[in-house]
Amino acid sequence: MTSLLRDRPASTPQMLAAFGDEALLRGALAFEAALARASAVEGLIPTAAADAIVTACADIEIDVAALADEAAHAGALAIPLVRRLRAQVGAKDSAAAAFVHRGATSQDLADTTLMLQARTGAALVSEDALAVGDALAGLAEAHAQTPMLGRTLLQAAQPITLGLKAAGWMRGVDDARQRFEREATAAIRLQLGGPVGTLAGLNPRVAELMALDLGLAPALPWHAQREAMAGLAASLAILTGALGKVAQDIALMAQSEIGEAFEPQVEGRGGSSSMPHKRNPTGCQVALSAARRAPGLAGGIMAGLPQAHERDLGGWQAEAPALAALFELTHGALAALRPVIEGLEVDTAAMAGNLTAAGVGEDVGQAAELTRQALARRQAG
Amino acid sequence: MTSLLRDRPASTPQMLAAFGDEALLRGALAFEAALARASAVEGLIPTAAADAIVTACADIEIDVAALADEAAHAGALAIPLVRRLRAQVGAKDSAAAAFVHRGATSQDLADTTLMLQARTGAALVSEDALAVGDALAGLAEAHAQTPMLGRTLLQAAQPITLGLKAAGWMRGVDDARQRFEREATAAIRLQLGGPVGTLAGLNPRVAELMALDLGLAPALPWHAQREAMAGLAASLAILTGALGKVAQDIALMAQSEIGEAFEPQVEGRGGSSSMPHKRNPTGCQVALSAARRAPGLAGGIMAGLPQAHERDLGGWQAEAPALAALFELTHGALAALRPVIEGLEVDTAAMAGNLTAAGVGEDVGQAAELTRQALARRQAG
Amino acid sequence: MTSLLRDRPASTPQMLAAFGDEALLRGALAFEAALARASAVEGLIPTAAADAIVTACADIEIDVAALADEAAHAGALAIPLVRRLRAQVGAKDSAAAAFVHRGATSQDLADTTLMLQARTGAALVSEDALAVGDALAGLAEAHAQTPMLGRTLLQAAQPITLGLKAAGWMRGVDDARQRFEREATAAIRLQLGGPVGTLAGLNPRVAELMALDLGLAPALPWHAQREAMAGLAASLAILTGALGKVAQDIALMAQSEIGEAFEPQVEGRGGSSSMPHKRNPTGCQVALSAARRAPGLAGGIMAGLPQAHERDLGGWQAEAPALAALFELTHGALAALRPVIEGLEVDTAAMAGNLTAAGVGEDVGQAAELTRQALARRQAG
Amino acid sequence: MTSLLRDRPASTPQMLAAFGDEALLRGALAFEAALARASAVEGLIPTAAADAIVTACADIEIDVAALADEAAHAGALAIPLVRRLRAQVGAKDSAAAAFVHRGATSQDLADTTLMLQARTGAALVSEDALAVGDALAGLAEAHAQTPMLGRTLLQAAQPITLGLKAAGWMRGVDDARQRFEREATAAIRLQLGGPVGTLAGLNPRVAELMALDLGLAPALPWHAQREAMAGLAASLAILTGALGKVAQDIALMAQSEIGEAFEPQVEGRGGSSSMPHKRNPTGCQVALSAARRAPGLAGGIMAGLPQAHERDLGGWQAEAPALAALFELTHGALAALRPVIEGLEVDTAAMAGNLTAAGVGEDVGQAAELTRQALARRQAG
Repeated sequence: MTSLLRDRPASTPQMLAAFGDEALLRGALAFEAALARASAVEGLIPTAAADAIVTACADIEIDVAALADEAAHAGALAIPLVRRLRAQVGAKDSAAAAFVHRGATSQDLADTTLMLQARTGAALVSEDALAVGDALAGLAEAHAQTPMLGRTLLQAAQPITLGLKAAGWMRGVDDARQRFEREATAAIRLQLGGPVGTLAGLNPRVAELMALDLGLAPALPWHAQREAMAGLAASLAILTGALGKVAQDIALMAQSEIGEAFEPQVEGRGGSSSMPHKRNPTGCQVALSAARRAPGLAGGIMAGLPQAHERDLGGWQAEAPALAALFELTHGALAALRPVIEGLEVDTAAMAGNLTAAGVGEDVGQAAELTRQALARRQAG
Repeated sequence: MTSLLRDRPASTPQMLAAFGDEALLRGALAFEAALARASAVEGLIPTAAADAIVTACADIEIDVAALADEAAHAGALAIPLVRRLRAQVGAKDSAAAAFVHRGATSQDLADTTLMLQARTGAALVSEDALAVGDALAGLAEAHAQTPMLGRTLLQAAQPITLGLKAAGWMRGVDDARQRFEREATAAIRLQLGGPVGTLAGLNPRVAELMALDLGLAPALPWHAQREAMAGLAASLAILTGALGKVAQDIALMAQSEIGEAFEPQVEGRGGSSSMPHKRNPTGCQVALSAARRAPGLAGGIMAGLPQAHERDLGGWQAEAPALAALFELTHGALAALRPVIEGLEVDTAAMAGNLTAAGVGEDVGQAAELTRQALARRQAG
Repeated sequence: MTSLLRDRPASTPQMLAAFGDEALLRGALAFEAALARASAVEGLIPTAAADAIVTACADIEIDVAALADEAAHAGALAIPLVRRLRAQVGAKDSAAAAFVHRGATSQDLADTTLMLQARTGAALVSEDALAVGDALAGLAEAHAQTPMLGRTLLQAAQPITLGLKAAGWMRGVDDARQRFEREATAAIRLQLGGPVGTLAGLNPRVAELMALDLGLAPALPWHAQREAMAGLAASLAILTGALGKVAQDIALMAQSEIGEAFEPQVEGRGGSSSMPHKRNPTGCQVALSAARRAPGLAGGIMAGLPQAHERDLGGWQAEAPALAALFELTHGALAALRPVIEGLEVDTAAMAGNLTAAGVGEDVGQAAELTRQALARRQAG
Repeated sequence: MTSLLRDRPASTPQMLAAFGDEALLRGALAFEAALARASAVEGLIPTAAADAIVTACADIEIDVAALADEAAHAGALAIPLVRRLRAQVGAKDSAAAAFVHRGATSQDLADTTLMLQARTGAALVSEDALAVGDALAGLAEAHAQTPMLGRTLLQAAQPITLGLKAAGWMRGVDDARQRFEREATAAIRLQLGGPVGTLAGLNPRVAELMALDLGLAPALPWHAQREAMAGLAASLAILTGALGKVAQDIALMAQSEIGEAFEPQVEGRGGSSSMPHKRNPTGCQVALSAARRAPGLAGGIMAGLPQAHERDLGGWQAEAPALAALFELTHGALAALRPVIEGLEVDTAAMAGNLTAAGVGEDVGQAAELTRQALARRQAG
């Protein structure tokens, strides 16, 4: 269930679901099941116990509100969740209950669950960012020869082409997407270390098996080394900023006195509660709003890097909500901007008119060649 | 309904409710009812229409999920909400429907609603911040003569008293609370200006009446002047930081090798999912986590101050979620830390032992006198 | 000496001087002299020693580059500075040398010196912020009846007056200035506590005398309670944001296609290295640039509030450069924007033309009345 | 010349020089010379003019203070600099003067100069970050079997080895260094586009030749697409955070009551102006201070991504000082921490004592194996 205040239109139902309660619990139970399976394979717990745990993870029904209350009281989600799971296991196989969560620590559960959610989120972001890049490439190609006024310091400067402008946007979004994908690949991985990251009572093979089972990259424990998390957060903020740049330019071009480009008309969107004549750049609004919120969230995660000893007090707990918000905002911006770019209404006559009115000549320099180079590099990957 | 990922234990049920959907809709409907009443008093709409609107605001039932979907599509909550309200009014009095929301703009509704929520939030913050200050004052008084080791740059330095340390915390929290109260008083006020802040179709008297009706301070329209909002956000971040200072010190004193102070033992709290012997400083964790998240949220609001023209594109939409989060985190930190301070277990023998071991003498200087002065100033208000 | 990269045009020579080396050393020596005088009055050191110290503070010549190297090595400025001062005193009165800096700690010196610099800075900011407010009030008054197009979400919306727009700017800058002055009054004060803030070897009367001597407010030691510092930093960022709002609007109005307002023509300013026809909004650029940099600086200070124990490791050392930068940026923005507003060239015909072209009618609502109210409130203080 | 307030010990003389006035002017003149040479090769300006310009770039003497004043007035450094260069060229070859800066814009000069400075800075950061990683690897290897108490939530938890702890630090610093090097490679490149990025009056071949000449990567114009800059800034903040993590842990271990590790004793460093018995963790202080300042600076650059049209108003001008500060702080932290790690004094007896006292057993799990894996991966690159 979404919050009117913060979730919509800032994000999308898919991304909100990716970081929602159900996905979180599913991830947490997948962690416990995978731990049990791997521990059994390694002979650390009885196979029957593992079976009982896996079954319980599939069957358990959880009262989320009560769980939230207990988690709030305990200070960690793992505590009441593991307790419930032990009870569920114990009801059928009392000996097996003691093997639930064996060797793991709260943060193993929390981080791995977050990474499972982030994996879903990353796929959504990556797909839509690629589509936005494609749409921008299409725009650059279609308007490679469309002259318009170039503006600097918000003043008429010299002629450009719309193609070159779109190629710039495309390079920005592509560059940011590639950074995001690189950081996501590095950051989204299993967390398993036990209380102090020594795998006491476990072994590295358990981690490898679990990673395989969960479809996450294996990793040495990273409880207190959050550089990859910070890199991922920054990459989301930068991608949102690249989208904000596109939105800003389109909104400036859509100004009434300029009238060069408009968001596509969509029934029920962009209207005003008080001014029926208006056609608001609603998609740009969502992207710009996201671009204002994202840097502070990423900055907070970067500021939390000096975490104490083997697992910090308060530091890692501060990250999950911020990372989730970054995914939500980035996908919200992508989803809002994608139809805007795909359906952008361009008024080439207005562009020509503004260019003529500015009286700055018609020399578009190497705009077409630079656009061609940008598109060729994209093609080349 | 709370989100496991971001709401608990980071915040409290009361504050989450204050910024929840129900409170938001109640506030939005209160705005529309107050606008209708005031407009009728001023003769701008028929009294019968106002009555119909007020009744509809009381009676209307709203499917929140559908509303959220439509708001996401439209880009503003006001549009589908006003449409529903018009339908509800029109079902009984078709002539009255056209008077719903008359003269107002989406942002009038959104800002005023947010301020109604902030008013509830401010009362919660203020009350608990005062209580935390009281508890710290009590600690300062009780331990005015308790010697302990003063530490600088994380090294043993010279003797202090626990009273002086607590008096410092108290001054920090009191100072931050007073700033917050000042900023809340200035910021929490009616928003009414109409589309471009000219009160076209309305008049200043409508705003005065609405303010009175809603119990908010009256104000000139502030659609694009968000300084007070930024001041409020900063004051919440600073209060959270003052709490983070207390939490940091207590957590450092609670280190196993130092053992000078501990959070009170609470059944089911502070345990570890993997280490039953541990007694984690869970309240401090919540406060420290909040102190890491708050500055980026406040910084984002400050960064959004240069809003364009009469109402910005994306700027003000970025504020509400951040402001709500700041209230939620601050109250979460207060609620977590209050019982910690009220029930703080102090080991004066350990303090004496650490002091002796450091071999830095016993001269506590004017600690008692400075503590007395701090308490006296507090008393004097 | 200024740095080409970071100092100009971002700040002003006066503010750079206020936070420059000379002012810093003057402040530091004033601290040591005041400490000696007050300590002698209180009988804590011999009067002759105080005289020798005061004389040395006046006479000493310091090789700043060598001092910087030693401070970098020692990790604190106070250490090599006090050593030099002791040598200077000892050369004339060997017994007096031991009384230099007696009872104080490095941070007493550093914080008090910073506050002396901030006092100079605050006067500069306050004066220019008032002048900017005055200029905006003048603009509001002069154009109380000048109709123009109101714009929302960067779209033509409904008519306003330029007076109402200017009144909004004025309210924003005035509000931010008043917050700044309140925070400056609270934050700019003496720091004296000795190593752990107990005034060991000193007494409260010494602090009172020193405060009087230095013209700073007296205060209980605040080594690790930095709320007032954070409040001051936030207030500077908010003031810069309020200026950024003015700059943003003027720059948008100055767009070639809109042409409603322009920065005054100044010989040698606003030109382009490549496009002689351009008239760049250079003053707005400086203010907008400052508004982008300030929030992160303030956010960093807020994030540093949880400082450890009696004096933190790294926390307070992070504040001085950020606070100085905030003063520098704010004054740079004020100095850049003041002549822009005082000499703003308004094209009322263009305003009328844009309004007519938008076809949104001529009803400016209560714009004149709201402007009058805003000006009256300002007058009333 | 350094500033006492902000430059030392926060940064190093080498990095301050890299972003100092002399390096900046040298870079700016190298840009103009390279532009002239390449333009001559491409037949866009006469070879004789290019020769005259190159000679003038080598010979010109610039009064920096006067230049700063004029740049402040003009709002851009390029304007007075190009004027001086034209005068210098014109004095010997009046026809050549007109070819100075031909085709370029202020931002071409400013960005390329900044990148030349960043290249120097990147080499310094990279070298020292590698050395810090090496030192941490050495520590991990030497102490692979040294047991110590693992601590979580600032509480005694379970045994680890110092080697595993150091291996975590090493992975953090290495990961952050690699991200930095990747981002630096992507971001540090030529800027050449002319006023609106079309290379009007120039051609792509000029850019290629200039890039070769200056030793920078070639690039399509990136005046308003600042994603790479933001990525570089974030990577510096993350590297600083990784160093802050090391510093935080060492400072916590150096606490008087814990006494497990200490910064090496250096004559004149780590002393206290008031407490001669103290041994302050001065290197850690510098790193922690940097880690507090860096995120806000990077966040500011990320927040500035939505830059308007072909070249923004205020946006890119806000970046250079922040990027310089990030390089300065990162190198300051590296330089401060490198000797700390290389000379870290480890008290293994104290570690053993604290571990025994905690009574948490002696099972260090797979610590040695995990350390070995981490070192092996490092070796493998």
